[in-house]
Amino acid sequence: MPLHSLADLFHETLRDVYYAEKKLTKALPKMAKKASSEELARAITDHLRETEGHVERLEQIFEMIDKPARAKKCPAMDGLIEEGDEVTASADEDATRDAAIIASAQTVEHYEISRYGTLATWAELLGYVDAKNLLGQTLDEEKAADEKLTGLAEDINVEAEEVDEAA
Amino acid sequence: MPLHSLADLFHETLRDVYYAEKKLTKALPKMAKKASSEELARAITDHLRETEGHVERLEQIFEMIDKPARAKKCPAMDGLIEEGDEVTASADEDATRDAAIIASAQTVEHYEISRYGTLATWAELLGYVDAKNLLGQTLDEEKAADEKLTGLAEDINVEAEEVDEAA
Repeated sequence: MPLHSLADLFHETLRDVYYAEKKLTKALPKMAKKASSEELARAITDHLRETEGHVERLEQIFEMIDKPARAKKCPAMDGLIEEGDEVTASADEDATRDAAIIASAQTVEHYEISRYGTLATWAELLGYVDAKNLLGQTLDEEKAADEKLTGLAEDINVEAEEVDEAA
Repeated sequence: MPLHSLADLFHETLRDVYYAEKKLTKALPKMAKKASSEELARAITDHLRETEGHVERLEQIFEMIDKPARAKKCPAMDGLIEEGDEVTASADEDATRDAAIIASAQTVEHYEISRYGTLATWAELLGYVDAKNLLGQTLDEEKAADEKLTGLAEDINVEAEEVDEAA
């Protein structure tokens, strides 16, 4: 279907992010299981609850614009998850694997920050006031999740660096 | 090859970003050609020059850590580029296509911001002082490129929104 207007583009990108968030609700539990740090595992599980909320918000927005909530394959999120799976599978030390999990989760957060930033801007221009508010709330949560990961990385990276020194 | 230490993880992620940047040097000229706004096309071409510099910096870092500059397939960048190609190919109005190009370019910038942020942190911990400085320079340029795109989007999104109103 051709994308003619900004409203079409908004709808298409909403479908892309809907796919991405739903895919993430499946990927996060696996990521939490692989984490050795309890704090990291807890942060990922907390973000899973948030992500389920993001899916619900997207469903509300589909309703607001009178469209069925239908996902569209998002090769970007597929690639991000695939890349994270690969690198964490190759890590053979707990702290190194945890450092890789954080780095990978941050690429996912950044993808979402970029998408929600764009969607919130477009919603405002299109006069979708309620949608803009919901998208802004999710955007804030994605930014907070990214900052939390940066904080967790401080200790975990140092532990991973000690693996180097012990080698 | 198993990733044992933080140094291994740094090297692996460097190879991933090397692939991503080289792929981007091929994607950006095509993206610039599709842009209708001259300002947007110019911003993309300027960023191509910067990206070529980022590739060279990565090659310097490979040399610093005594490793051959060898790329490793990065499914994330492949997915980001594929997604951008799809959506811009579907847009049948100039301003809508330009808005889609900006949104897609911003997902790429955010991926790179995330990767360079991680690599710079790891380089510091590993005592790779010169590498850390080079990575920090690239990180700043990626953030500036993202902000420039946000600025360009202001006018272009309004034009795209006028396509809606004229419809």
